[in-house]
Amino acid sequence: MITKESLSRNLLAAQYAVRGPIVHRAQQLEEQGRKIIYCNIGNPQALKQKPLSYLRQALSLLEYPPLLERQEILHSYPRDIIEKVKSILERHPHGTGAYTQSAGIPFIRQAVADFIHKRDGIPTDRDHVILTDGASKGVQASILALLKKPNDGFMIPIPQYPLYSATITLYGGKQIGYFIDEENGWQLNETILTASVEKAKREGIDPVAIAIINPGNPTGAVLSYENITMIVGFARRFNLSIMADEVYQENVYDPKAKFHSFAKVMHEIGETGVSLFSFHSVSKGFLGECGHRGGYVEFRNIPDDVLSELVKLQSISLCANVDGQIATYLMVTPPKVGDESYETYVKERDGILAALKAKAELLGEEINKIDGMSLAVPQGAMYAFVKFELPPDPRVDMSTMSNVERLDYESKRDEHYCLGLLEKAGLCVVPGSGFGQLPGTLHFRTTFLPPLEEIKEFVKKLKEFHLRYVQKLEESYQLSHS
Amino acid sequence: MITKESLSRNLLAAQYAVRGPIVHRAQQLEEQGRKIIYCNIGNPQALKQKPLSYLRQALSLLEYPPLLERQEILHSYPRDIIEKVKSILERHPHGTGAYTQSAGIPFIRQAVADFIHKRDGIPTDRDHVILTDGASKGVQASILALLKKPNDGFMIPIPQYPLYSATITLYGGKQIGYFIDEENGWQLNETILTASVEKAKREGIDPVAIAIINPGNPTGAVLSYENITMIVGFARRFNLSIMADEVYQENVYDPKAKFHSFAKVMHEIGETGVSLFSFHSVSKGFLGECGHRGGYVEFRNIPDDVLSELVKLQSISLCANVDGQIATYLMVTPPKVGDESYETYVKERDGILAALKAKAELLGEEINKIDGMSLAVPQGAMYAFVKFELPPDPRVDMSTMSNVERLDYESKRDEHYCLGLLEKAGLCVVPGSGFGQLPGTLHFRTTFLPPLEEIKEFVKKLKEFHLRYVQKLEESYQLSHS
Repeated sequence: MITKESLSRNLLAAQYAVRGPIVHRAQQLEEQGRKIIYCNIGNPQALKQKPLSYLRQALSLLEYPPLLERQEILHSYPRDIIEKVKSILERHPHGTGAYTQSAGIPFIRQAVADFIHKRDGIPTDRDHVILTDGASKGVQASILALLKKPNDGFMIPIPQYPLYSATITLYGGKQIGYFIDEENGWQLNETILTASVEKAKREGIDPVAIAIINPGNPTGAVLSYENITMIVGFARRFNLSIMADEVYQENVYDPKAKFHSFAKVMHEIGETGVSLFSFHSVSKGFLGECGHRGGYVEFRNIPDDVLSELVKLQSISLCANVDGQIATYLMVTPPKVGDESYETYVKERDGILAALKAKAELLGEEINKIDGMSLAVPQGAMYAFVKFELPPDPRVDMSTMSNVERLDYESKRDEHYCLGLLEKAGLCVVPGSGFGQLPGTLHFRTTFLPPLEEIKEFVKKLKEFHLRYVQKLEESYQLSHS
Repeated sequence: MITKESLSRNLLAAQYAVRGPIVHRAQQLEEQGRKIIYCNIGNPQALKQKPLSYLRQALSLLEYPPLLERQEILHSYPRDIIEKVKSILERHPHGTGAYTQSAGIPFIRQAVADFIHKRDGIPTDRDHVILTDGASKGVQASILALLKKPNDGFMIPIPQYPLYSATITLYGGKQIGYFIDEENGWQLNETILTASVEKAKREGIDPVAIAIINPGNPTGAVLSYENITMIVGFARRFNLSIMADEVYQENVYDPKAKFHSFAKVMHEIGETGVSLFSFHSVSKGFLGECGHRGGYVEFRNIPDDVLSELVKLQSISLCANVDGQIATYLMVTPPKVGDESYETYVKERDGILAALKAKAELLGEEINKIDGMSLAVPQGAMYAFVKFELPPDPRVDMSTMSNVERLDYESKRDEHYCLGLLEKAGLCVVPGSGFGQLPGTLHFRTTFLPPLEEIKEFVKKLKEFHLRYVQKLEESYQLSHS
């Protein structure tokens, strides 16, 4: 029989905190009847966000096309949705039940190319688009393809979304963490980037790519045009491919912030030498269709023979699920002014985005009022990365610790805090150490997805818990020093 | 910019013939207006097999639950389907739009466990089931988990479904091919297995698992109870995990053959030491829902801490798509006698299976009549692996070739034949070298999925092409020797 010893060392080493032991404990408590506010994961529809009627009406018809022959359906579904479904079935008569081409249904890849063209005003090519089971699978495939030898390194932000660290570990590559700049609204900093990559090279690591998450997860920050230009130049200088995780491109709330795609910036500054992989998904934005696992990766500055290899990689697991492919199509071809479904679509879309904005602001402002807590009010995405301070633990003498011991201690400390927050207050968040953080700092990531009333409850309970937690530490500190 | 040189050597080396250059050429010809009969891939609904109404009606409601409030739907959909959908939504109110637990929705895993219990009369445990995006993703995850070092070897049948060879190559492991016995209805042969594993060990390979496809792809063979018992004993002796690919378990046409799961056989012979991974899918059987990418892997004789690691692996890409999870649920909980949808379900199911059986027999019998062609009439699955003979090519002197050159020549020879079959006759099949074959033999794999009329046309055109092809070879042979 196999044992843990039989398993891949890389698998054993991989960590994925967003679904780690704290979430497991939360599920246990919930089964025991406790009310838990889940702020650990960007899973909007699990937190009562409603799906868009437009998307779901179309999918219901595609799953069972005989509905199209039913008068009552024809009369009650918006006309444009029926026409759209018919046109999908004309171009793709196999519907949702057959494997598609490995890269995805051709007209959907064309629609994605058109969407990017329209968004950015730049030339696009459907053959540079592969449809994937959510953005995660696209990211994983790209890392697998670019990882040639065990000392190949991928630059990832710290804090980062742990898909990156876990996948690099899983496939046996090296992480090159670069700290992003909390003091400057979590933008990237060229000095830090350069120092990180040069340190890695001195350690024998061969950097091959840099991953950027914009808008940021877990930070909620939106990168400026200048910042992106700087990153592209940096990538060129160090001969890195860029992996641009742009799944939150629709989630920008701060009127002063604007989403700029890497594709657009690279086109505008005439960058044709840096290879770009950009990722998008139906899981975020105002769709929040995480369960459908739809998404795409678009490639730029990539030769045809490389493209063929990327398509071959996709072909080994056949193709992305077709409902997800179609959800992607519906995302990139929304109803137009004058369409019968347009008004509902706009109302639902704007309602979701307005609610997210209000919740982001409320969460940001209220947490900033808590003594010992601070955060940049999220400009985008679905997350806040909250910095918190704790008094020293009297049982611990940090002055005698090595760096590794200190990191280990700090990660246990934020885990202990978050576990307490769950046990005492029923709030499920993810410790900062799961994403990475500047040594000596403590954070947790929370989403602002639950309904507004729950966000209010969240902030209130968080404050109470934090004050008690700090007070207890202080008391025991005074006790031990008295 | 990256070049092919920048990519993973393992990716470059991986091959996946089922979607290789011949299929690409077929798509080109079709775009030019040629009629192509696609027999290259087990993709039933692309070949006009209709989806089951039961499954699609349920999915249509789940995609857009407001349909459940519509009187006309309530009146026209079968009562039991409406109840089933309501009960799904009660247990899983997030519907299709939210991420699920990493291993999949708990009640669906329970239903899978119940299905296996009912099928095999053996104890089952939902916590040993993980829902996956089709069986392919389950196979890939298992190989990734079991691959600890580059000389770890996976035994795979020859011929095999290239998912196995491609994935092992991709993740950097070693293949240990074992020939299956064409003369004995493609059963496994203990002498050959032992010789293969011992040869591998002498070459420094460390065998960790054996993959078995039953019913067989590309062979269409169904393994006997005794054969499975032998394999389990072999795995125990060499301390191998078993990967049992059982996606064709419902596709058994020969009344003398019967599907036995590895789980059942292992339970009945009291085998508790061999770790088992078994795979099933909604893509095959009579569902043919390839596009939905639903499936599961069940584990046996696997300790809890290993199980946790396998769930963690799944968590890194979040969860399988929810429509696929629900399709799996519908597969394992079909309508029961007395349910309103039962009759339609049985009629559709039996119609599909009867048609497949008729097509398997027709194809088998007719091809066996062609001079120089032979095959075991498929007992199951969706494929026939056809053996064919060609006269020697006058331009080639095989006596001076090394073994490697000879294999290379033979694989080019069957590729050339299959490409001709496509160009001249419009028939798209996959060369035997894509699956592996005994040196000195030539094969191609064909499905028997197209409608009966097309199968007839297929056999007729195949015969004409083959005779002409052989004749031409003979003529040029005589010419060169005259």
